[in-house]
Amino acid sequence: MAIRHYLQFSDLTADDYAWLFRRAALIKAKFKAYEKYHPLADRTLAMIFEKASTRTRVSFEAGMYQLGGSVVHLTTGDTQLGRAEPIEDTARVISRMVDLVMIRTFGQDKIERFAAHSRVPVINGLTNEFHPCQILADIFTLLEHRGQDSEGMPDPAFLQGKVVAWVGDGNNMANTWLQAAELLGFTVHLSTPSGYEVDQSVAGVRSSDSYQVFKDPMEACRGADLVTTDVWTSMGYEAENEARKKAFADWCVDAEMMRAAKPGALFMHCLPAHRGEEVEAEVIDGPQSVVWDEAENRMHVQKALMEFLLLGRMA
Amino acid sequence: MAIRHYLQFSDLTADDYAWLFRRAALIKAKFKAYEKYHPLADRTLAMIFEKASTRTRVSFEAGMYQLGGSVVHLTTGDTQLGRAEPIEDTARVISRMVDLVMIRTFGQDKIERFAAHSRVPVINGLTNEFHPCQILADIFTLLEHRGQDSEGMPDPAFLQGKVVAWVGDGNNMANTWLQAAELLGFTVHLSTPSGYEVDQSVAGVRSSDSYQVFKDPMEACRGADLVTTDVWTSMGYEAENEARKKAFADWCVDAEMMRAAKPGALFMHCLPAHRGEEVEAEVIDGPQSVVWDEAENRMHVQKALMEFLLLGRMA
Amino acid sequence: MAIRHYLQFSDLTADDYAWLFRRAALIKAKFKAYEKYHPLADRTLAMIFEKASTRTRVSFEAGMYQLGGSVVHLTTGDTQLGRAEPIEDTARVISRMVDLVMIRTFGQDKIERFAAHSRVPVINGLTNEFHPCQILADIFTLLEHRGQDSEGMPDPAFLQGKVVAWVGDGNNMANTWLQAAELLGFTVHLSTPSGYEVDQSVAGVRSSDSYQVFKDPMEACRGADLVTTDVWTSMGYEAENEARKKAFADWCVDAEMMRAAKPGALFMHCLPAHRGEEVEAEVIDGPQSVVWDEAENRMHVQKALMEFLLLGRMA
Repeated sequence: MAIRHYLQFSDLTADDYAWLFRRAALIKAKFKAYEKYHPLADRTLAMIFEKASTRTRVSFEAGMYQLGGSVVHLTTGDTQLGRAEPIEDTARVISRMVDLVMIRTFGQDKIERFAAHSRVPVINGLTNEFHPCQILADIFTLLEHRGQDSEGMPDPAFLQGKVVAWVGDGNNMANTWLQAAELLGFTVHLSTPSGYEVDQSVAGVRSSDSYQVFKDPMEACRGADLVTTDVWTSMGYEAENEARKKAFADWCVDAEMMRAAKPGALFMHCLPAHRGEEVEAEVIDGPQSVVWDEAENRMHVQKALMEFLLLGRMA
Repeated sequence: MAIRHYLQFSDLTADDYAWLFRRAALIKAKFKAYEKYHPLADRTLAMIFEKASTRTRVSFEAGMYQLGGSVVHLTTGDTQLGRAEPIEDTARVISRMVDLVMIRTFGQDKIERFAAHSRVPVINGLTNEFHPCQILADIFTLLEHRGQDSEGMPDPAFLQGKVVAWVGDGNNMANTWLQAAELLGFTVHLSTPSGYEVDQSVAGVRSSDSYQVFKDPMEACRGADLVTTDVWTSMGYEAENEARKKAFADWCVDAEMMRAAKPGALFMHCLPAHRGEEVEAEVIDGPQSVVWDEAENRMHVQKALMEFLLLGRMA
Repeated sequence: MAIRHYLQFSDLTADDYAWLFRRAALIKAKFKAYEKYHPLADRTLAMIFEKASTRTRVSFEAGMYQLGGSVVHLTTGDTQLGRAEPIEDTARVISRMVDLVMIRTFGQDKIERFAAHSRVPVINGLTNEFHPCQILADIFTLLEHRGQDSEGMPDPAFLQGKVVAWVGDGNNMANTWLQAAELLGFTVHLSTPSGYEVDQSVAGVRSSDSYQVFKDPMEACRGADLVTTDVWTSMGYEAENEARKKAFADWCVDAEMMRAAKPGALFMHCLPAHRGEEVEAEVIDGPQSVVWDEAENRMHVQKALMEFLLLGRMA
């Protein structure tokens, strides 16, 4: 069996995603019922963090334990991708000892070089360019709340023609939303401040058919099924903080924007959130917000993903 | 079932403690016999450290493994309670993914805010104000050495009217001893240098019936069943080190103080110890010292505590 | 049963090594077959790192998980051997809570003091003086590739009279090779730059019968069954980096040196490697190099070692 990596959202097919959403729902149900489920017993996940993280760390690590597996947690202090030795050597060595690798790093090129020399599947736990695990969780959460079939299972057909409004930075989250829209048949309404636009070539989508650009964030929210945003200054861009505060001042998701969206539209945020900056407290702490479910679902979709990469589609 | 936290010693009842001491003895016996005992299989403990620790780290982590569970170890570098996001958000997210949280932090208010928004039990692994897990271990160790019933099990009735001498800093350990004395029926003899007294309102005890203050540490030790102390300068107070060395010069537990105590009195210290400062080598390394049992017992009482918080009183 | 530590290569006998190589081969075969094998279930390994490491970290940690055990990973930030408290106290406390301790530190004296006060076996995961786990892996790898018996098991008799060429720093690796040669009956050809010679008294070998010193690295390689080297500047010696670059310029393992060795000679390196410094790319990436097997074998020999130290020679 060829090794499957998960470096970008586009690495899997729509069919794969249908399977993953269904598995995530089943795995989540087992967790809620305290049902023992150990498909990854005796498997070890290495997690390599070059940027700190609470959510990614806990969701992958606790998730792996729930599936019966083990985790080796490596931080930059322990490993330094590409500093003490070429990334390729690190990949060769680590992938001899563990069954799966998750990497949170800076450039997408680093994770690609690692994967090219790895004997085991590699998962993108966030790069400057992409954050596929988060979007996987977000779409699962959308289906869980709005798109279930008659048996209560996530139904990806729901996504057809739906609208996701992205308000804010044209960052790795925005890029990944574009890939997901192209693959799964929905539309992204993008509204980013001037100078922070999404670059279609970086996003890696073939056409502009699945997204629309809006100058005014309010316009982007109009008719949206989901409104979502991110912090103004992502990790690694702290030096730009002051400039960003000015540029992003109008890109704050507020109650008015939520009213512009469809009735019953959801609000999501990958967290941590800065209330009063990219989102008003009344939105993130309000009834349309599903941010805590979204955070928990990171863990469940990642369990489904790890199972899929290691064991394929199980019965 | 309401969530039970363990933020202060006074969070449990005397009856709960009787149960915990008994469970700790049973769990310790299983450990010594290499008997497999996995009541917390598939449960995950998140440990959040804002102050470094060897003993708390190893005792909780190894203890959780012994009970069949898993551990996610987060340090300030990974998480920063209240910096990247409000503590309340961190509590909401982490408590969605794990079954139990242990926090070692600075202010007691931080752990209380976390617990107020957590879906799972929270354990105080040391704050500026309290250190309940250590006192739990200390009392268990006292019972193990001096207060067993006819079946060799710890008998909390032994504690009635006994005297614990606290020699040194009026810190989180001293505060917690006061809570324990009030709850379990013994008396604390406190002797602290001028300027380092225990504050009854911080200690959170209702009356001064269960403790007595002595200017002279020798007087505090007179008739004590247990003499105990701590480093002159706890973590976080390093800037005061020189001033403390002068103020604490007479608060060094020596052989004379131990002779003032009851014959067969025990010596305890939560470690690390600085011989020649708060305790003489002949005391901590002498026959009345039970500091290594005390250290090991952290692990066993915490196993009993984790089991209790997650599963209640089992058959 | 007396506690067995593994602080130097000479701590075990030739007979012990014969057993270990055989166990490592069996344990590796189980790993490759995904066969569950949990002899260390419910056992916990504490790893104490005072120097960072990827390979030692992952190989011990993943190895322990594969054997069914658990790991507590402590770094200097968590523990500080000998700083916050005497090493002896740390040893007493940690060895009350875990079943096995691995230490990577600076001076050999530290690990010896720790072991002297530990209730459980202690493993040297690298000191300034020795690196026995690496040499254990290297010899196992040599036997795996060149010295198997008729049943495909490692045959230590193969080693008799063989030659290992050490090209470079007279460091902990070189010292450990000398101990291994004396114990297992092969010869080491040492070639080190002037000022970086092996000190026989540090190496701890009784005689100079099992090694020969060569000024010219090419001469050291002549007739060798294995050529091996290490980085010019090991961890902890970074301040000497520039001086070392000059001194070591001629100690670069190149194709010519490999041709001087026996036909079919192997090349090994404990990694990380700096191509163009201590080894040319065409050597380490060439057909005689077994560095990736060597890296993976760290894990398997260490599993055999941990099993041996905890359970002795099993049936």
